[in-house]
Amino acid sequence: MELIVELLNITTGGNRIAVISEQTASSLGVRSSDRIRIVYGKRQVISIANIAEHFPNDRIGLFEETESALAVKGDEVVQVQLAPLPESLFNIRAKLRGERLREKDIIAIVNNVVERHLSSVEIAAFLTALSIHGLSTAETEALSQAMIITGKTLNFGRSPILDKHSVGGIPGDKTSMLIVPIVAAAGFTIPKTSSRAITSPAGTADRMETLCPVTLSIPEIKRVVEETNGCLVWGGSLELAPADDLFIQVEYPLGIDPMLLPSILSKKKAIGATHVVIDIPTGMGAKIKTRTEAYSLASDFVDLGKRLGLNIQCALTFGDQPLGCGIGPALEAREALQTLMGGGPPDLREKAVSLAGMLFEMIGVGDGRGMAEDMIDSGKALAKMRQIIAAQGGDATVKAEALPVGPHKFALRSDRAGKVLWLSTDDIVRIAREAGAPKEKGAGVMLHAKLGDAVRKDGLLFEIYAERGSKLASAVELAMRLSPIVLSKKPEEKMILDQIPEKTAHEKSFSLDR
Amino acid sequence: MELIVELLNITTGGNRIAVISEQTASSLGVRSSDRIRIVYGKRQVISIANIAEHFPNDRIGLFEETESALAVKGDEVVQVQLAPLPESLFNIRAKLRGERLREKDIIAIVNNVVERHLSSVEIAAFLTALSIHGLSTAETEALSQAMIITGKTLNFGRSPILDKHSVGGIPGDKTSMLIVPIVAAAGFTIPKTSSRAITSPAGTADRMETLCPVTLSIPEIKRVVEETNGCLVWGGSLELAPADDLFIQVEYPLGIDPMLLPSILSKKKAIGATHVVIDIPTGMGAKIKTRTEAYSLASDFVDLGKRLGLNIQCALTFGDQPLGCGIGPALEAREALQTLMGGGPPDLREKAVSLAGMLFEMIGVGDGRGMAEDMIDSGKALAKMRQIIAAQGGDATVKAEALPVGPHKFALRSDRAGKVLWLSTDDIVRIAREAGAPKEKGAGVMLHAKLGDAVRKDGLLFEIYAERGSKLASAVELAMRLSPIVLSKKPEEKMILDQIPEKTAHEKSFSLDR
Repeated sequence: MELIVELLNITTGGNRIAVISEQTASSLGVRSSDRIRIVYGKRQVISIANIAEHFPNDRIGLFEETESALAVKGDEVVQVQLAPLPESLFNIRAKLRGERLREKDIIAIVNNVVERHLSSVEIAAFLTALSIHGLSTAETEALSQAMIITGKTLNFGRSPILDKHSVGGIPGDKTSMLIVPIVAAAGFTIPKTSSRAITSPAGTADRMETLCPVTLSIPEIKRVVEETNGCLVWGGSLELAPADDLFIQVEYPLGIDPMLLPSILSKKKAIGATHVVIDIPTGMGAKIKTRTEAYSLASDFVDLGKRLGLNIQCALTFGDQPLGCGIGPALEAREALQTLMGGGPPDLREKAVSLAGMLFEMIGVGDGRGMAEDMIDSGKALAKMRQIIAAQGGDATVKAEALPVGPHKFALRSDRAGKVLWLSTDDIVRIAREAGAPKEKGAGVMLHAKLGDAVRKDGLLFEIYAERGSKLASAVELAMRLSPIVLSKKPEEKMILDQIPEKTAHEKSFSLDR
Repeated sequence: MELIVELLNITTGGNRIAVISEQTASSLGVRSSDRIRIVYGKRQVISIANIAEHFPNDRIGLFEETESALAVKGDEVVQVQLAPLPESLFNIRAKLRGERLREKDIIAIVNNVVERHLSSVEIAAFLTALSIHGLSTAETEALSQAMIITGKTLNFGRSPILDKHSVGGIPGDKTSMLIVPIVAAAGFTIPKTSSRAITSPAGTADRMETLCPVTLSIPEIKRVVEETNGCLVWGGSLELAPADDLFIQVEYPLGIDPMLLPSILSKKKAIGATHVVIDIPTGMGAKIKTRTEAYSLASDFVDLGKRLGLNIQCALTFGDQPLGCGIGPALEAREALQTLMGGGPPDLREKAVSLAGMLFEMIGVGDGRGMAEDMIDSGKALAKMRQIIAAQGGDATVKAEALPVGPHKFALRSDRAGKVLWLSTDDIVRIAREAGAPKEKGAGVMLHAKLGDAVRKDGLLFEIYAERGSKLASAVELAMRLSPIVLSKKPEEKMILDQIPEKTAHEKSFSLDR
């Protein structure tokens, strides 16, 4: 059937979609989600049909992805017909029926995901089926391999390549900004890619961006790593395991993450890692709440790592409260620099040298932790960090104190004396975000009392920083309402931590960082 | 956050969707599929956020559904913030974990589906989970009830109200066009709604439309039924159980239909039916292939009917080949009229009087089949059909022979003598569609040889009708290639019915009509 092109001038951010009217769909024998072949001159594309109630019968509406694939202009005529469904859709249907998929079935699915030939409805059904039926070890491995081969991979021509990943969950976790310079200062290679914050007040990419650019191309990353042994860059634009971004978009609203392990480890393989430490923060303030969950996740990581030829160790880390004191991009970068200078909060230093030490020992160093401490105490890690900052295009002479933080500040004090019995990380996150983090990089929260600390009446609990007065006001208002820090002389004096129905509505985040 | 409105001037055909840039999403703490609250003056709507890679950071793109809900114009400023996820999404997550849903959980989901507050990803996950975990009887009943209360219902102020539904699958099935006038002629009420063809060569609405209008409003339907006891109208625009249309869109590409029973029976309840015969064509040419499947489906229908207060009987009908000879809207309408006049193919008459007879006996008639035959033989059913045609706005004096069929015609003849051993309904459907059906109402296929028929060398197998010569040519070419009718003297002479890999690619349809 001949149809006239109508350009919609908008991207779908994914699938190639074409809009046709109900009547046109019926003549073509096309149902919603069916594929149509659109032919224009020598070019042709397969698009997913969107059937709109009110659309001209003689026209086909093209989103920008389809427009550019066809190189067509508005009002030109294209040939349109029903196209067969992609083969991989039948593999998805098999998974819906509970069948085990073969490696080639899984590769077909992941290929079609990356080529945007599967709709989000079909991807949702696939991930739901995986989540309900579970994945066999062979399927998990095949998914990982499929995600690697459908993306870009890096080769630094070095070995070993170390890496570290946190499944996320506690705010203020700036450990990567210490581990990378510690490892690189010791002469080992650690090309670290990180994410930006979505629901948290800062991701490692956001923190590092207060010191230097983090959006680097693959050739730039190679140069930085060759010069310094390490990097701290944003992984989002590198197209390592691009299928994962599409899976995450679909999994997020559903609160499922059957692809967690393949997702994380395929990215590590894509960057060429040989030895990886996985940090699993466990506790009240983290995404993983119990040790049972953490151990089960850890052993799955180790198993899959073996199958993929990755040497993996997992660390269950204390996750009952934020790490360090600063929460928000600039506050955290400042604290990371202070810690590299030998100061900083003790929990942050302890976590960084422990995890770096594990990495060192995985590649044969006798006293890994000692080596990590050495790198800090000798100033080598700090010097290395300055070198990395410079190589990525930042100011190597940056001073921790000179990093700009929000000029608007408010201190919250305790109305009584006591010990910190409970600290709601969820509430701290909300307050830091209300103050403007992560977008306003100087915004955030500075904790002055953590679990177990004794606080006097009128003692400082935390400060809120903001770049704008209005943001500060609403963050302070929220902090007053939430009271995220609970004090008591002894636990038994304050047994009720929360009321159900809750005093305020909490928005919980369900997905693990990957 | 304040954003400037950009009107996208396109309907999504469903969800309220708003497009924002990645950076804007990050500042709002919004991930793809999150909900945002958009406030404009005194109006506000909750939309699903679509995050586009390249979109201006200070703008929000609105599809027409959101634009009209807000009554906003381009370049105006709206307030945007993250909104909580709908409560029903947590019910869907519970179903993903395998939990049983309570009636109120299911009502919340169906409500949110109809209000377009759930995205297609979320609906897909729900239906996938239902398909994998299965539905309890209580869940099936709750889904049916929820679908009824979220749609419109009809009340004719009469009882009993009879109805008939086919789960579909064999081409040429014009039985409803006989049953409705038979039942109505006997003085009983039968307000029949039907669908249009999507993947078949004709739906009952398409067939009837060659005789009179079928897109009637609810008041018009009431008038027609009051005047004639029956109607034959298109159900698509009546908003009976509107959730179902949204479920079907999502189920179709996945090849699942966990909602089949609630879907069909909720529509029957919505139209006020008290006694329903469900036709389950079973056999090689139908969607239901085996008796085991058919019996299991039938007993589920009867059970759910009881819970909903519907009196249901199912008929397993012969489904190895098309019903009657005509396939295509006008060819089928012609055949239906001929059968009402006492002629027509015997299998069509036999099926119609049997099913109508079942309905009569369900409401206490002693010899239902006899009564049905009487209605035809006395000419009362034909007179009633003319009365219904007139009441719906058609020409009551229409003559079967005068119905326009495609002027371009081609006869396919046998190259040898033999009996019809096999007849591929799939291939017949493809040929009829290639000829132009259902859009070109005069197009289709007229069978002259059916299973078991003896055919001489050069004997007529079937004719192809088309409204356009080019369509006829490509349908003939397809027919030559497919050879849908297999002849043999005895079965053992032709044991191979098809080859795998197939000689031609077949597109199978997976969903049942509902």
